[in-house]
This record gives sequence, structure tokens and C-alpha cells, in this order.
Amino acid sequence: MIHFCSQCGAPTGFQTPAGDSRPRHICCRCNHIHYENPRLVVGCIAEFDGKILLCRRAIEPRRNYWTLPGGFMENSETTSQGALRETLEEAGTTVVIDAPFAMVNLAFINQVHLFYRGHLQTPYYAAGEESLEVRLVALADIPWDDLAFRSVAVCLEQYITDRQRGEFGFHESDLPPINPLEHSG
Amino acid sequence: MIHFCSQCGAPTGFQTPAGDSRPRHICCRCNHIHYENPRLVVGCIAEFDGKILLCRRAIEPRRNYWTLPGGFMENSETTSQGALRETLEEAGTTVVIDAPFAMVNLAFINQVHLFYRGHLQTPYYAAGEESLEVRLVALADIPWDDLAFRSVAVCLEQYITDRQRGEFGFHESDLPPINPLEHSG
Repeated sequence: MIHFCSQCGAPTGFQTPAGDSRPRHICCRCNHIHYENPRLVVGCIAEFDGKILLCRRAIEPRRNYWTLPGGFMENSETTSQGALRETLEEAGTTVVIDAPFAMVNLAFINQVHLFYRGHLQTPYYAAGEESLEVRLVALADIPWDDLAFRSVAVCLEQYITDRQRGEFGFHESDLPPINPLEHSG
Repeated sequence: MIHFCSQCGAPTGFQTPAGDSRPRHICCRCNHIHYENPRLVVGCIAEFDGKILLCRRAIEPRRNYWTLPGGFMENSETTSQGALRETLEEAGTTVVIDAPFAMVNLAFINQVHLFYRGHLQTPYYAAGEESLEVRLVALADIPWDDLAFRSVAVCLEQYITDRQRGEFGFHESDLPPINPLEHSG
């Protein structure tokens, strides 16, 4: 919610601008329109020797649960640069990106999750500040009941399927909310 | 630039929060952190009878130039829903989406452009408020010198290449700025 104008500090109203089709937060004084848009989360599914790099989260939401390295894309970077940066921050390793792999829409929290497929050139990694632990996990040993986010589970399932058929594609999925109050991916 | 806090209206400072790696606009009074992230532009490359649906823009930037239907993704929608909505708004037609086709990063303007491949079931369309004209254009007749955005040119080039080889893939491109002052995709 945008209660005050980012440009002049006056209160905003919530109405549909002329020529627009949906309401926006508009400044009552300077008429600045504040647009709100979905955010991109970028990450990597990175393989070494048949195993996948997973991180156990040190922060909320979903502290203690396992995830693929990833996070919010920042301004001034590309999607792949963001995925590499997050992997370096959370898993202490530089991945070689192979291709975009999975895009998961979570419209109910205004997020799009994009995972790249990649690989490590050496088995060296280290938990960053946001991770309690980082591991290379065999596909047969993925902790399905302890994954942090549904988008991560979707990506891992698609990865296993593609690996078994011997060809990787690009996958798109739309996840519905678990319940109307859900605010986690 | 976020000069004033969206939550309380007080002025913001620009500094790096504890545990973060880059500066954000932080409220001097309530300490609310304002994150700014790239925006997704979603659109369609839609075919009918070997021709592609193009719109001549009625609005700036790039008024009068030709583009694929597309625009900023909105909250509460998926990428494909956004692409369909924009195509309906700008070209007055409902497209059948076939697959994600091209993702173009424009890090210098904090945008990611995502185009879906699709097709029209009937040759009916109509210019919306943001279009001066809509046409089905043969691939040989694309007005390359009069395209609105480089991302559109990239998408069309990739489409023609894939069409010629008889197989469509998913393509990723990163566009550099034309010059350091550029603010258009």
C-alpha cells in the first residue's frame, strides 16, 4: 500500500487515472501516479556430478527449509546476472549457466519465479549469510517434505522428468494459492 | 527516485540497510525500506495464415512506430494473462497462446520483455486506444526500419529463424544500451 506520495510526501488517493483501466495510488497534491507491478525472483538449479545444489534457509520466511539459491532480481542487472549473484550470495559458488529452465507464476503474491539450469565446475561452495547449510543432493535424496517453496518443488520435479527423458526444455507453470490468505510462494 | 516514505510521508535517506548489499531509500522516521525492482513487459507474437499481428503505436514513446502487442504486467495476473490482456487492449483480439518464446533483458532500463508465441483463430482484430492501426503483416513485409523497440526486432528475427528451421524454441537475449543516456527499449 502506498499511503503517501514518493515525490512530494502528500497523501495519495486510490482511483483509476484517465485512460487507464485499473485504480492506482495517485498523489492528491502533485497527481503523481504510483504503479505497482509483479516482482521477479531469479535462481539456479545447478548440478555437479549428478547432484543438485540446495541451501537450507537461515532467514524467514521458511527458515530451516531447503531451497534452490535465488532471490529478488535487482535493478541494473539481467535475469541471469541476478541468478548468478543470488547463487554466489547464498551458496558461495559461481555457477555456469546453461539455459533458462523453469518459469513459475505466483499471481496471488505478485511474483514470477525464473530458474536457470546450470552446473558447477568444481564441488566447492559455502553457506552465505542467508543459508544455514549448503549441500549437493542426489536427485533421489531431495527432501521433498522440507522444501521451502512450492515453486522450488515444481522446478525440481520438471528437472527430474527432463533428466529422465534425456532432454531439457523450458517449462512454464502457474501456481494457485493454497488458500486465500496465503502470502508465501 | 523515492523522496518520501510511502508509509508515513517523511523524507527518505539513501543508504544500505543492515545485512543488505546495496543502498535503498529508507524512511528517516519509520525506517521503512523501499525496494525498487525491474518490471516485466509481456506481449505476444501472434500468427494467422503465415502473417504476424503488428500494432502502430498511438502513444509515446515511439508513437507511429510498429510493435508487437504488449505492455507492463500488472499485479494479480500471470505472465500469459498479462500478454493476453495487452493483446486484447491494443489489438482487439483474443489470441491462443502456444508457448513462451522470447525473453529480452534490458537491464539499463530495469525491464525484462517476455513474448509469447500464439495464433489467432479468426482474422478479426481492431485497433485499441493505444494503437493507430493493427495489421496482419507477412514475415517478408515486416517494417524493420519502423519498429518501435529493439526487443520487438529481436523477437521477430528469432521467430523468422525458428520458422525457417521448422522448430520453435525459447530464446533469451540481453540488449545493451545504445548509448548511456538511452531510456527506451
